Amino acid sequence: MAAPPALAFSTDNCTIGRAMDVLGERWTFVVLREVFNGIRRFDDMRRHTCIPRQVLTNRLAVLVEQGILRRVPYREAGQRERHEYRLTEKGFDLYPVLVAVAAWGDRYLAGPEGPPIEFEHRDCGAAVEVGLRCAAGHELAGSREVQGRPGPGVRPFAEPA
Amino acid sequence: MAAPPALAFSTDNCTIGRAMDVLGERWTFVVLREVFNGIRRFDDMRRHTCIPRQVLTNRLAVLVEQGILRRVPYREAGQRERHEYRLTEKGFDLYPVLVAVAAWGDRYLAGPEGPPIEFEHRDCGAAVEVGLRCAAGHELAGSREVQGRPGPGVRPFAEPA
Repeated sequence: MAAPPALAFSTDNCTIGRAMDVLGERWTFVVLREVFNGIRRFDDMRRHTCIPRQVLTNRLAVLVEQGILRRVPYREAGQRERHEYRLTEKGFDLYPVLVAVAAWGDRYLAGPEGPPIEFEHRDCGAAVEVGLRCAAGHELAGSREVQGRPGPGVRPFAEPA
Repeated sequence: MAAPPALAFSTDNCTIGRAMDVLGERWTFVVLREVFNGIRRFDDMRRHTCIPRQVLTNRLAVLVEQGILRRVPYREAGQRERHEYRLTEKGFDLYPVLVAVAAWGDRYLAGPEGPPIEFEHRDCGAAVEVGLRCAAGHELAGSREVQGRPGPGVRPFAEPA
């Protein structure tokens, strides 16, 4: 068999790899899910998800450091100042990833009762789905009609020494 | 502040959490990227990605066990039988997740030279993008127009004992 064409290209600057350097940990998506669902406070997240305290602290710190969440101070009556976590624009732009993960999970991993969360258009209440779109307007029957091609940043692959 | 409504619902059967139990590790997406790009053989993946041998073995085993990849035997002249890895339907259905991750990575993590990979419609060559769609046909200006709502499988949240 001839070598796969993609083998000729480097993975050094792969943006999937770079994205997963930031996101590639189970709890990261769970934390993002909480914030997308309006659960923004440390104690609420901890109670709701059972993420160990130290892991939650670390995940939130990484997400803030990466500019995906920002810390906003608040103070409840008689308490010290605390922080809640809100999505930045960079964070909000992860919504399609989250919806795509949920759609796949709903198809293959939901119980017989169906998915616990659905997504809707805020204005009209209709379901919102994530999908692949051809820029020329063609209907795509499925993922098999899509393929990767080298982009402007493609680099040749050099065998490591 | 009133408690966030989502705090009333359990995360026990969250399909995002379940999906990330399977996918939530950086190298898993890198392995899937390789296979989507036609790089299906262990040695090709290892050379191309520099994933440590044992980690690659483990990731592939999990993906096979989960029914995302299947092992297909092949034999090159004069060599012992080996296996390559191909996407199942369940695996192919992860393409929108991968394209969504790449799109976010391209926006925020690409170098000045731009993304190394683009996605195209196999038939016409036009760009393929991933996006959120309102089932009622409305144009969505952005993710802020989308919200979660309880689905058929929603369960009440019970504070852990």
